[in-house]
Amino acid sequence: MDIAALRELYPQYEAQLLEWLTYPSISAQPPSPQAMEDCARWTAAAMRRAGLTAVEILPTLGHPAVLGRSEVRPDRPTVLIYGHYDVQPVDPVDLWETPPFAPRLAHDRVYARGASDDKGQVMVQLAALDALYRQEGCLPVNVVMLVEGEEEIGSPHLRSILLDQVLPCRPHLAVVSDTAMWAEGVPAITTGLRGMTLLDVTLTGPQRDLHSGTYGGAVANPLEVLSRLLAGLKDADGTINIPGFLDTVRPMTAKERAELARVPFDEAAYRQDLGVAALEGGEWQRPVLERLWFRPTLEINGMWGGFQGAGSKTVLPAQAHAKLSMRLVPDQDPQDIADLVASALRQRAPASVQVAVHRHPGGGRAVVVDEGCLGLDLARQALEQSFAHPALLIREGASIPVVADFKQLLGVDTLLIGFALPDCRAHSPNESLHLPTFRAGIASMVRFYHGLAAIPDWQRATDPSTD
Amino acid sequence: MDIAALRELYPQYEAQLLEWLTYPSISAQPPSPQAMEDCARWTAAAMRRAGLTAVEILPTLGHPAVLGRSEVRPDRPTVLIYGHYDVQPVDPVDLWETPPFAPRLAHDRVYARGASDDKGQVMVQLAALDALYRQEGCLPVNVVMLVEGEEEIGSPHLRSILLDQVLPCRPHLAVVSDTAMWAEGVPAITTGLRGMTLLDVTLTGPQRDLHSGTYGGAVANPLEVLSRLLAGLKDADGTINIPGFLDTVRPMTAKERAELARVPFDEAAYRQDLGVAALEGGEWQRPVLERLWFRPTLEINGMWGGFQGAGSKTVLPAQAHAKLSMRLVPDQDPQDIADLVASALRQRAPASVQVAVHRHPGGGRAVVVDEGCLGLDLARQALEQSFAHPALLIREGASIPVVADFKQLLGVDTLLIGFALPDCRAHSPNESLHLPTFRAGIASMVRFYHGLAAIPDWQRATDPSTD
Repeated sequence: MDIAALRELYPQYEAQLLEWLTYPSISAQPPSPQAMEDCARWTAAAMRRAGLTAVEILPTLGHPAVLGRSEVRPDRPTVLIYGHYDVQPVDPVDLWETPPFAPRLAHDRVYARGASDDKGQVMVQLAALDALYRQEGCLPVNVVMLVEGEEEIGSPHLRSILLDQVLPCRPHLAVVSDTAMWAEGVPAITTGLRGMTLLDVTLTGPQRDLHSGTYGGAVANPLEVLSRLLAGLKDADGTINIPGFLDTVRPMTAKERAELARVPFDEAAYRQDLGVAALEGGEWQRPVLERLWFRPTLEINGMWGGFQGAGSKTVLPAQAHAKLSMRLVPDQDPQDIADLVASALRQRAPASVQVAVHRHPGGGRAVVVDEGCLGLDLARQALEQSFAHPALLIREGASIPVVADFKQLLGVDTLLIGFALPDCRAHSPNESLHLPTFRAGIASMVRFYHGLAAIPDWQRATDPSTD
Repeated sequence: MDIAALRELYPQYEAQLLEWLTYPSISAQPPSPQAMEDCARWTAAAMRRAGLTAVEILPTLGHPAVLGRSEVRPDRPTVLIYGHYDVQPVDPVDLWETPPFAPRLAHDRVYARGASDDKGQVMVQLAALDALYRQEGCLPVNVVMLVEGEEEIGSPHLRSILLDQVLPCRPHLAVVSDTAMWAEGVPAITTGLRGMTLLDVTLTGPQRDLHSGTYGGAVANPLEVLSRLLAGLKDADGTINIPGFLDTVRPMTAKERAELARVPFDEAAYRQDLGVAALEGGEWQRPVLERLWFRPTLEINGMWGGFQGAGSKTVLPAQAHAKLSMRLVPDQDPQDIADLVASALRQRAPASVQVAVHRHPGGGRAVVVDEGCLGLDLARQALEQSFAHPALLIREGASIPVVADFKQLLGVDTLLIGFALPDCRAHSPNESLHLPTFRAGIASMVRFYHGLAAIPDWQRATDPSTD
C-alpha cells in the first residue's frame, strides 16, 4: 500500500466529483423524471471504475438505488459501504452565491449542493476503493456498496433492498461517510445518532378564507390556534411537555458525562458562526452538547398559512400548516412518539378547529455504536495516521435512519466516519466540501480497508454462527 | 322621478358591470403595469356616461384614481360619492369555480373578484346617477365622484387627492357603498366601522438555514419563538394582553347595548355558514356582535417560514415571518397601537432572535356616524321604499379608513349604504353580487339623490359658516 502515490490520483477524483455534483438529484423535487435516473447511471459507472464487478441500478417505486459488489475473498470480511446520491432542495435559491449545481472551486473548497451531503463523502469511499484496486489489482476485502437516491426523503424503499439484495451478502460491518469531523484537522468517529419522526399538521377553521375585518373577533384564526398549540408543546425552560414523550429517554451515565466533558466545545465560536446572541434551543438550561447528543427535540421545520405576498391582505385564513420533526434518543420509538405528539395536538385543540396529523415517511430510531465494534480501533488509527491528529469519538444530533436498519435487518454495527466539516452548510445555501479533508479522508479509508483485510479475529467477533 | 322605468335600464347596467369585472385590477399584485390604467380608463368612461362632466384620471405614484364632477346646482348640496375599482388578490386561485376575472351569471348572482367589493357597489352609484341624468336631464344634486385604485393596499395616495382635488369642492356629505346589508331583503346603514393598523413582523435567528438534526436543541427556532410570541399576545380568554392596547377602548353605553340586543343575530346559522363548530375568535366569552362591532382585534393575516413544499426538509429556518392586522375601535390611534404591539414583541423576544417590525401603509381610525347626520333619515326611507323592509342601523367589523379621512380632512360625515350580502365572499374565492339587491339598490339611490335635492335645511345643518 503506497499512500504517497495517492497524490497523483487526487486530481482525477476531484474532477469526477465536480462532474457528479452537476446532477440536480433533488429527491424531494426532481427537476425531471429523468434526473435521478441520470445521476444513478453516473454512480454505477463510478462503482465499476472502482473495481466493483456486479454493479446494478435497482429500480424502486421512487428513485433508483445503485448496488455494486466485489466478493472474491471468502477469507476476508465483507463491508457494506452505504451512501446516497440524492440531495436536499436548494431553496432559498437566491441565497446561493453561485448556482447550486454549477460546482465552484474556491478557498480549497468545492461549493455545490451535495458537496458534503453526501456525494463528496461517497466519493471518498469510491476513491479509496479505486486506489486500492489500482494498487493491489483486487479489493482487499469483500465490498457491497449501496448508494441510494431517496435518503433525503426518508429512504422509503431501502428496507426491501436491504432484505432482498444486501442480507444475502452477509456483511460483517457497515461503513457510512455521511457525518462531520469535529473540526478541520480533527477527525472523528460518530458513535451516536439521534433518530427521527416527522409529522405534517393541518388545522382547518372556517370552510373558506374570511375577511379579517368582517369576521375578526368572531371566528378563531387557525394560525393563532396553531401558534398557541405549538408554543404549548414546551414548558418555559424548553422541556417538551407532552405526556410520555420523555419517559423512555435514558439518563446519561457517569462515563458519558465524563466523555462529553472531554470534548473541546467552544460555545462562543459556535454562537459566532451562527450569528446568534444566545443559544436557547430545546432545554436551554442544559449544556449545548448534552442537548444535541443526549436529548430529543421537537422542531418546526416549516409553518405557513394566510397571505405571504407583497403588501397586505386582510384575511382570516381557513387553514394553517406546520411540518414538525422530532429528533429521538434511545429508547424512543418513532411511531410511539409520533402518536404522542399527534394526540397532544388533537386533545389540546379547541372545538373551533379541526386537526389533521399525518406521519411522514422516513425517520427511525436512534443508534448508539458499541465501543467494541469491529474495525472501530482500526478506523481510529487510520484516521490518526492520515490526519496527524487523534480521532475523537463523538455523537451527532442528525439522523441516519438506515444505520438502525443495518443493525435490525442485517445484524451489523456501523462505523460512521465523516469527512464533512462543521461549517459545510449541509441542507443550506452554499454547501461546500473541504478538499484537503477529502484527500486525507481518501488516505484514511485506503489505510482502513487495507488494515481490515489483516484483522485476525474478525470472524470470531462478528459471525453469529460461532456463538 | 319614475322608479318603474328603471326596469328598462337594469340590463344595460348589469352588462356594464360584467364588462368592468373582466379587468384584473389587483392593486397588490397588478398583472401588468397597464392593468390598473386600463381599468381606470373604463371607470372614467362610465362616469361620463352617468352625466359627470369634469372627469379626469388622476395619476399617483401608485395606481391612478378617477375623479368626476357635476356642480351645476349652487342651491343644492354637494355629495362626495366614493368607491374603489381595485380588488383583492385572488389566491388561492384553485378554489375558484370559474376564473375570477371571467364573470359568471348563476342563481341570480354574478361571480367574479370585485363583484361586491367594490365594483358592483360602485356600479349601483353610477347606475343611479345615470338613471337620474337620463330622466331629469341633469343630476339633482352636485356630485363629486371619486373612485380610487388603491383601497385594498391602504389608499397610500388618497389623502393628497382629498386635500388637493376634493376639499375645494366643499362637499356636504359623503356616500360610500362598500358595506353589506344585514341579510337578503334587509337593508342596512352602517353607522360604525372599525379602524385598522397593519404590521409586518420578521424574526431572525441564525444567519442561515440550519440542519434541524445537527443544530436542533442548541439553537432557538425562529418559527417556534414567533409562535410563542404571537400566542402570548392574548390571554386564555382571548383578551389582548399588551399593556395600553385596551386603555382607550370606550365601554359600551346602555343605549348601544339596547340597540345591539335588537339586531336579530342567528349564531347557529352564522356558525353553519362558516363551517365551524365553535365561535372562539377574540374575547370569546363576550357576545359575537359585541366582539365584531365594539371590540378591537389582533389577527394573524399570514405567517410563514421554513419548508412548505411536498415531502420534508429537516431545516431549522433562519427566519420566521408574520403579517398582523389590528382592528380598532374608538378611540384607538393606529400609530399608538402599532407602537404598542411592536414594543411588546421586541420586549418579549428572547436574546436568540432579532425582531424587525414594520408598520404597513394603510389603516386608520374607527368611525362612528352620528344619528343626526345629514341624509341619514332620508336614506333609511329610500331603502325601506326600495326593499319593502325597514333599514337597520348596524356596525361593521371591517375598516374603510377613508371614512375617517373624510371627517378629518373634509369635515363631512359618511353614509355607508351597502349592497353586498353577508355571503358575498369578499376577499375570498367565488366572490359574488346578488343582482336583485343590485337593482333595488339602484332604485334606493335614485330615490335618495332625488330626495336630497329637496331637503330644506341641508345648508344650515352642514355649512360651518352659519355657526
